[in-house]
Amino acid sequence: MNVFGKNFRVQIFGESHGPVIGVVIDGVKAGLPITTEDFAGEIARRKSGSNGTTPRIEADEPQILSGVFEGHATGTPLAIIFRNQNTHSSDYEALRDVPRPGHADWTANVKWNGFNDPRGGGHFSGRLTLPIVAAGVVAKKMLSKANIIAQLIEVGGVPKPESMTDVKVQDAAIAVQIWDEILAKAMAENDSVGGIVECCIDGLPAGIGEPFWDSAESLISHAIFAIPGVRGIEFGDGFAAARMKGSEHNDPFEYSEGRIRPAKNGSGGINGGITNGGPIIFRVAFKPTSSIRKVQKTLNIKTNELETLIVPGRHDACIALRAPVIVEAMAAIALADLVTTKKQW
Amino acid sequence: MNVFGKNFRVQIFGESHGPVIGVVIDGVKAGLPITTEDFAGEIARRKSGSNGTTPRIEADEPQILSGVFEGHATGTPLAIIFRNQNTHSSDYEALRDVPRPGHADWTANVKWNGFNDPRGGGHFSGRLTLPIVAAGVVAKKMLSKANIIAQLIEVGGVPKPESMTDVKVQDAAIAVQIWDEILAKAMAENDSVGGIVECCIDGLPAGIGEPFWDSAESLISHAIFAIPGVRGIEFGDGFAAARMKGSEHNDPFEYSEGRIRPAKNGSGGINGGITNGGPIIFRVAFKPTSSIRKVQKTLNIKTNELETLIVPGRHDACIALRAPVIVEAMAAIALADLVTTKKQW
Amino acid sequence: MNVFGKNFRVQIFGESHGPVIGVVIDGVKAGLPITTEDFAGEIARRKSGSNGTTPRIEADEPQILSGVFEGHATGTPLAIIFRNQNTHSSDYEALRDVPRPGHADWTANVKWNGFNDPRGGGHFSGRLTLPIVAAGVVAKKMLSKANIIAQLIEVGGVPKPESMTDVKVQDAAIAVQIWDEILAKAMAENDSVGGIVECCIDGLPAGIGEPFWDSAESLISHAIFAIPGVRGIEFGDGFAAARMKGSEHNDPFEYSEGRIRPAKNGSGGINGGITNGGPIIFRVAFKPTSSIRKVQKTLNIKTNELETLIVPGRHDACIALRAPVIVEAMAAIALADLVTTKKQW
Amino acid sequence: MNVFGKNFRVQIFGESHGPVIGVVIDGVKAGLPITTEDFAGEIARRKSGSNGTTPRIEADEPQILSGVFEGHATGTPLAIIFRNQNTHSSDYEALRDVPRPGHADWTANVKWNGFNDPRGGGHFSGRLTLPIVAAGVVAKKMLSKANIIAQLIEVGGVPKPESMTDVKVQDAAIAVQIWDEILAKAMAENDSVGGIVECCIDGLPAGIGEPFWDSAESLISHAIFAIPGVRGIEFGDGFAAARMKGSEHNDPFEYSEGRIRPAKNGSGGINGGITNGGPIIFRVAFKPTSSIRKVQKTLNIKTNELETLIVPGRHDACIALRAPVIVEAMAAIALADLVTTKKQW
Repeated sequence: MNVFGKNFRVQIFGESHGPVIGVVIDGVKAGLPITTEDFAGEIARRKSGSNGTTPRIEADEPQILSGVFEGHATGTPLAIIFRNQNTHSSDYEALRDVPRPGHADWTANVKWNGFNDPRGGGHFSGRLTLPIVAAGVVAKKMLSKANIIAQLIEVGGVPKPESMTDVKVQDAAIAVQIWDEILAKAMAENDSVGGIVECCIDGLPAGIGEPFWDSAESLISHAIFAIPGVRGIEFGDGFAAARMKGSEHNDPFEYSEGRIRPAKNGSGGINGGITNGGPIIFRVAFKPTSSIRKVQKTLNIKTNELETLIVPGRHDACIALRAPVIVEAMAAIALADLVTTKKQW
Repeated sequence: MNVFGKNFRVQIFGESHGPVIGVVIDGVKAGLPITTEDFAGEIARRKSGSNGTTPRIEADEPQILSGVFEGHATGTPLAIIFRNQNTHSSDYEALRDVPRPGHADWTANVKWNGFNDPRGGGHFSGRLTLPIVAAGVVAKKMLSKANIIAQLIEVGGVPKPESMTDVKVQDAAIAVQIWDEILAKAMAENDSVGGIVECCIDGLPAGIGEPFWDSAESLISHAIFAIPGVRGIEFGDGFAAARMKGSEHNDPFEYSEGRIRPAKNGSGGINGGITNGGPIIFRVAFKPTSSIRKVQKTLNIKTNELETLIVPGRHDACIALRAPVIVEAMAAIALADLVTTKKQW
Repeated sequence: MNVFGKNFRVQIFGESHGPVIGVVIDGVKAGLPITTEDFAGEIARRKSGSNGTTPRIEADEPQILSGVFEGHATGTPLAIIFRNQNTHSSDYEALRDVPRPGHADWTANVKWNGFNDPRGGGHFSGRLTLPIVAAGVVAKKMLSKANIIAQLIEVGGVPKPESMTDVKVQDAAIAVQIWDEILAKAMAENDSVGGIVECCIDGLPAGIGEPFWDSAESLISHAIFAIPGVRGIEFGDGFAAARMKGSEHNDPFEYSEGRIRPAKNGSGGINGGITNGGPIIFRVAFKPTSSIRKVQKTLNIKTNELETLIVPGRHDACIALRAPVIVEAMAAIALADLVTTKKQW
Repeated sequence: MNVFGKNFRVQIFGESHGPVIGVVIDGVKAGLPITTEDFAGEIARRKSGSNGTTPRIEADEPQILSGVFEGHATGTPLAIIFRNQNTHSSDYEALRDVPRPGHADWTANVKWNGFNDPRGGGHFSGRLTLPIVAAGVVAKKMLSKANIIAQLIEVGGVPKPESMTDVKVQDAAIAVQIWDEILAKAMAENDSVGGIVECCIDGLPAGIGEPFWDSAESLISHAIFAIPGVRGIEFGDGFAAARMKGSEHNDPFEYSEGRIRPAKNGSGGINGGITNGGPIIFRVAFKPTSSIRKVQKTLNIKTNELETLIVPGRHDACIALRAPVIVEAMAAIALADLVTTKKQW
């Protein structure tokens, strides 16, 4: 069921090679200024074009169908669509009986008894992250006091160089020369690499999130694992916390800048599922791109015989390169839902 | 809001030092055999008593209030409660103005304007994992064909010894001598250690899970982060996937034992959010216990002055020791919801 | 699935002859003063005892299990139970194969493949309206500015006498002598009669409710039809509106007492699903009690032969007599959910 | 929040004078044959054109944006839009400060602080029933064994003539001459009339619906009150049941045509919220059209002075005329959700 959220709700629809992909966003605050131009920056960040990204270039121009009147959100559902134009469906015809390793071709086929749209991955295409980015733009407007920044911190096993750790390199993979070399090598080998994205959210008040099931981590991780290719998420000290002592990991509170807050951030800004006023910090592991031009073995599901496969089409060498803006969108969507759920009688 | 699930729904309630804690489970299959004895084994696994766990011992006897008739689930809501008996509320009186680092004392206070029950962590107590384990017993019955096993694989930074990797050491931390020594040392130092739990679910069919928002990973991680003390989760190759090549990480399909399935399991048994027929595998990082007897600095939120604090009460040296059965319960709850949501017209 | 609401959420559980019946209420505003005494008045209104009601008398004393600390709501789930004590299960043994006309015996049997608890109607017992009344008490506290009053306006086809229309006869069926005679006659004939309850809610602001699906009427009617025995609901002019002209039915707006409001109330206080500041008015039709001592024909579902049946047990001659407080509770529950959903950034 | 349903979910969006109106339907059974032609019949039934309906004629051609591949539902979200073409926005400019009696102009203004789109009622326009009818077409396909028929049974207070009660006059208001005369008279007087629609659903199995909150009546009434202009709903004997004796109203069971079912239908085919195998029958009261050309008094909300108003634009003399297909759609949507929720392990 393709919807997320209780009070700020995001529903996506569409297939990679259908006429459009889109999103309906419910629970938008009436009066929020919204124009199609507002989406341009974030959409550009998601776009391919830089080194290591696919040459499938789409116009990606949002059309607002409803929910905006005279430049402001009306409060009723906000629908946005994007045309699919640059589709090469014939690329995929050969794949109908040979599911690509790492993709949802086989699982979608099983789930829907073969009625799924297989062209370009259909509904499972990474292209569906475009309406998610659009919803993220609106979610960020709902969280106007929060500052949400995600950045690549590792590509192909190589962390961002020590000298750059203070620099916010949000999307410019290119700025890190060693990553460029890793990407070039992967492409030359018809292979792909993975990466890690870190996200930091500052400016949220304490008290956001619910105990247990709807903890801030639960909702954020729920949304993050909806991004294709995510393999793991950790908050604050993350997996390293499992190797720390309580006296190291615990965050004492302090009083500074006129408010109570954690003196350090081992917990990632969340205690008991509820924001503590410190920055929320989490990291997301992205697998290497599944679509590679290297020869792979897989199964023909009609004959049950093994076959060799070279995945056709145009693909990123590293999906993490385009991921930061998507990670930000997902975090914003989850937090916009939690913030609107917080009661303020 | 303390509820999880759409079609198999779990609502927990209660406070550490209130009269009872409990759970209401909705969507139980009518006719499922259920008796109070069925809970004994899992509850015993969660219980303290072994080395490194708290000496607060509770009877933990479930009382079924509704939803079972003549030994079978009726199909209507199943309510179960557990009495709280061994409570030492006076331990906590001194803490009302001095939030314990790593706990929800401060965030709960902010969220509910000071009206939260602070005794023993109130609603945030680890004791609330008891009704979760009870719900897990019912969820496992819903998934009768699945085999769900979680085990400790690392304590205090020390993985299970190579020689034991084939042995399923579900809860017997004790079996690993080196962990015993780590725990003894932590207790001697009035400190605590973290750990990692791995969970493997076998026997589920392909086709469980929804694209994007309600992916199998999304629902499992949502439930897992509802466990107090979780800092990270990873599926299949997990964070290591970010350091692999696509040709290494991708799982080709094969035909064996009469069905199509992945030949290896880098993806953790899930493609595009939907189970692929391979075992679901994930790992969960637990922080070191926050309650330690070592002197800590924290803030008095009335005076805004720093104070020193020794957390009173009785606590585990490593919360991960008792976590495997809780991790299994959460996985079962999330999967029972996804399985009952899967339409089979 | 036995839950209602999105942000103020009510889950009931229990069976007529099980150990307890109960309710878990989620989304209660922290700090709301709540004691067990607060429930006494409403519970007394629901109780049997007056002319035409069943002689099954229960203590009906609420036990608060969680969610209240030092006399105030904590903000975490509020669980309340009531013991079942005065049960005569043997009355029902004979009925297992002979479903009582008008009851859920047969449909529950079909739905749950015979695993339902049949004693006293099991989960379908009118007794489950007791936890609903308890939830209503809490919901009314959430709506402290609203004044919710339901009253019987018709019994056995006889409206409240003209002379009494200005008198609020909330529950005192007894006050209307002609109704007493109708009830006495029905009991003498081993039969039962129906009735109509009118509910008026004053003091809510304009702007509560959502367009289309979650209109105020949609949520109220959803909750009202959850009361056993309801056959119809109408708002404002109701069915009579279908016989009016637009110029008669339309409510013009006026400015009075310092605010804009409807000058009359044909719409029942709601336009486009959203409250307009006028009182919400609706009427609910209750069927005659299904359990009668008169001989009825029905089917033996084992033999598929017709049988005669005299329903044993102790029953009201008119379920509408005890309904006003339940109608108020349901209206309060639905409106508490809508009010907490209304965003106030 | 503009969504309905849990497992078959319908989200509508759009404004009367925006570029499009539309619907996203989630939970559609994969493999269901769907083409744009399938919608033509139902859309034609909803269209204006007959006596007493507005001359605003729209092409109303559905565009399927997603969720259908090679003529079958894929199982992923199905999005459908309709262009708005024949809009006269200038008609409404004069109304911004003078809310039309009976409309949501004022309540929408209050709810969204004046940011609502006021043109043609914006999101509250009856035009939004077009995507609802489209969703109804899909819902009916989900319920292929059910036969859902709604028909006008009363216009302007005049029931369908006795001689025609056996004739299914689904939408042909015209067929009833006396109604024609009533409509002509209302139009001549610049006024409007109300009407009553009856809906009968045959062919559903017993066992659909949930106890209490999600009773079949609760979900159907929830959906029905989402139709603009509905003032009441009653099931089976309805309000008349309040005037019956238990011995008259109760439906005994019988065994006929190879199955157990109710011998008559006072309950409307539902016991305890669950279908009993008999036809579901309910009636819906529609108010007279609010937009009339007769002079009305209302308030100028800027000046708080009374003004006179003649509602411009093009309107039906009786909204009930076009309602039967909408009532069917709503019933189908509610039942499709309940049917997909029913577990069949």
